[in-house]
Amino acid sequence: MPRFDLVAFDADDTLWHHETLYHGTQQRFRELLADYHPPEWIDARLDAAERRNLAHFGYGVKGFVLSMIETAVELTEGRVSGPQVQQIIDWGRDMLSTPIELLPGVREAVAAVAELHRVAVVTKGDLFDQEAKLARSGLGDLFAAFEVVSEKDAKAYAAVMRRLGVEPGRFVMVGNSVKSDVLPVLAAGGAAVHIPYELTWAHEVVPAGGAEFATLGSIAELPGWLER
Amino acid sequence: MPRFDLVAFDADDTLWHHETLYHGTQQRFRELLADYHPPEWIDARLDAAERRNLAHFGYGVKGFVLSMIETAVELTEGRVSGPQVQQIIDWGRDMLSTPIELLPGVREAVAAVAELHRVAVVTKGDLFDQEAKLARSGLGDLFAAFEVVSEKDAKAYAAVMRRLGVEPGRFVMVGNSVKSDVLPVLAAGGAAVHIPYELTWAHEVVPAGGAEFATLGSIAELPGWLER
Repeated sequence: MPRFDLVAFDADDTLWHHETLYHGTQQRFRELLADYHPPEWIDARLDAAERRNLAHFGYGVKGFVLSMIETAVELTEGRVSGPQVQQIIDWGRDMLSTPIELLPGVREAVAAVAELHRVAVVTKGDLFDQEAKLARSGLGDLFAAFEVVSEKDAKAYAAVMRRLGVEPGRFVMVGNSVKSDVLPVLAAGGAAVHIPYELTWAHEVVPAGGAEFATLGSIAELPGWLER
Repeated sequence: MPRFDLVAFDADDTLWHHETLYHGTQQRFRELLADYHPPEWIDARLDAAERRNLAHFGYGVKGFVLSMIETAVELTEGRVSGPQVQQIIDWGRDMLSTPIELLPGVREAVAAVAELHRVAVVTKGDLFDQEAKLARSGLGDLFAAFEVVSEKDAKAYAAVMRRLGVEPGRFVMVGNSVKSDVLPVLAAGGAAVHIPYELTWAHEVVPAGGAEFATLGSIAELPGWLER
């Protein structure tokens, strides 16, 4: 009998590349404002705008676009042109329609896990963005449930477990973020597997608080880990 | 025994005023561009931008803001200024933080329904917007579930019924839109109550296809209707 009833996967940087998309757009944004400021200052002001706007606009591409526009207005002292603003919006549209690049071994690993478990996606962010990405990923048929939450805290995971009808002790979350995919799941009584993004080694980690979770080098190791 | 196990409510223009918020912002947008174009043409171009962007940005305030900015760039032939763009973004932030104005009798009606039924919200739109509105509405404690879907079609309602563990024949949806809250629910095997926005009379409607649903004049009539 499997150790878990439900295996839930984070999406961005766990199933598919995500940060690379933002980095590419941010590079173009630096070039757009290169006549005004050095890249470090542009990054710092964009980061400040994103933090300020998170409470208003949440996570996702649309909020990122609005933060870029605000930063462009600020850093050009209002001289940013209409066509430049349009250019920034067009980058956002490109980000939302660009092909999804799966991480290596994802389809095979999820399919193998799905043979013995219910599998779900639990992701943070913009509902529309995330559904569109799942559709473009070609993975939609593999998952029994697709849950988008606005924050990944213990309360949100407890609500997901209730919605999906799974006991905390039979739930395991797989993701690339200790902060979002591991610690709040442990706090909610579930188990967690950490798969760092672009890291190629595996070891077990026991943080100071004594919480225990597995760290794997790639998602390809997951089916084997679940059968251990 | 109640006729239904779960009573689901649409949110925008069913629980709280929504269209009025957009109309107010759109009026300011017309004034911003009044030197360039007559209001009818501004409305027409904004409407076209919204339709074009729906597939990219989905429903919600952030998508509306991006459509206003694109329309301003287009209608000023790129001469819109940075401060004007910033103004449009500020309107969006205002829309997302403005107090929620409940429709008359909503709290009492939902509380009365909740005495005999599980009650949920099923709403379309931006997850972040909708969760923020529920929090500001003060109604959050009344609902057992809050489901945000990206489209309200029969498939989405069937998925909601499965997630909430309710048989279609024991599910009733209450909302202001025949297209979104009634017809797809009937197609998924559920029942529906139509409460037109700002309409003060009640009657029963049987559309051409023979689907049957109730139309009530206000949400205050709902608890009585459920007990009939």
